[in-house]
Amino acid sequence: MLHLAAPTRPDWVVQAVADPESLLLDHAQCEKKAAGTALNLMFRYADQPWLQRPLSELAREELEHFELCMDVLRERGWAFRKLNAGPYGARLMQNVRRGEPHRLLDTLLVCALIEARSCERMKLLSKAFLDSDPQLAELYRSLLASEARHHMLYSDLATEHFGREVVRPRLKALAQEEARVLTELAEEARPMRMHS
Amino acid sequence: MLHLAAPTRPDWVVQAVADPESLLLDHAQCEKKAAGTALNLMFRYADQPWLQRPLSELAREELEHFELCMDVLRERGWAFRKLNAGPYGARLMQNVRRGEPHRLLDTLLVCALIEARSCERMKLLSKAFLDSDPQLAELYRSLLASEARHHMLYSDLATEHFGREVVRPRLKALAQEEARVLTELAEEARPMRMHS
Repeated sequence: MLHLAAPTRPDWVVQAVADPESLLLDHAQCEKKAAGTALNLMFRYADQPWLQRPLSELAREELEHFELCMDVLRERGWAFRKLNAGPYGARLMQNVRRGEPHRLLDTLLVCALIEARSCERMKLLSKAFLDSDPQLAELYRSLLASEARHHMLYSDLATEHFGREVVRPRLKALAQEEARVLTELAEEARPMRMHS
Repeated sequence: MLHLAAPTRPDWVVQAVADPESLLLDHAQCEKKAAGTALNLMFRYADQPWLQRPLSELAREELEHFELCMDVLRERGWAFRKLNAGPYGARLMQNVRRGEPHRLLDTLLVCALIEARSCERMKLLSKAFLDSDPQLAELYRSLLASEARHHMLYSDLATEHFGREVVRPRLKALAQEEARVLTELAEEARPMRMHS
């Protein structure tokens, strides 16, 4: 259902559970970034009414989740600070073709895949934290349905506008790129992030 | 309370009432722009935790109002389309000094003044539409309290962070600039906008 080409490697979960503070800080930033991406699309495609309301609703929900992460950080006394974001998003976006309508199609599908990966990982986190940190387990359990919904929203927008025959092969190709980027990042042994 | 240096000229209200479609289209875009500005500040000042939650809440509310405007546009069969925004915001932003902390202070105060002007004009609109278009009168009546709250939010953030002695004279100077920009725009006889 999530259209991912490969599952998350088990050692990412081990790293995440070992450093919940970095995980949550990066997660907060991911939610903010997701809101920013949706809003950027609303401005870039201001002449496309069909994108406006769904992306506005999505951006609001991402901001709610950002605030939820901020709540948990504050409760734990973990200071909010800027964390280097890691190159996952930028590397994925390198696959977005220039020129319309390809640029819009690819951007929607890359966003769909980022949401899908978040959903897959939050499910893993909700299980992995179950004994050691029930509050974080519950946080991730409560968010993963939204991530799945956001994945569907982006892929549905693409399908409604570009048609299934165009979307299906392109989504498959981009999903393979997404899995490749994650393998690269693992080999580079970068700091743990939501999307490392 | 709104710290404006001059009231809106009466002929702006006459123009707005004569062209509610342009008014509402531009208003929708203003709400989206306000959300974008708040989110941009959250990214630019990602290392300043005190700004994050208030601006996130504000951005969500601006997006709700954007969606509300879209509802009214759709109900009336007025197609959503991109409208040239007019130079009000950009001219105001020219008064933002370079270099921190001036840049942050001035940006917060310019945002406070834009919200104040919106509030003042929505009050005028809620009265002006009362007989001719009760739905629009009610829309503007329902929004003006939020605009006042957003004005207070921006000026309070500035005051808490920079102190009253710094904020008061700067807000006064910027309010005079804001009034000057509106006079300029009136003399240039530009198309009617929420902030023309």
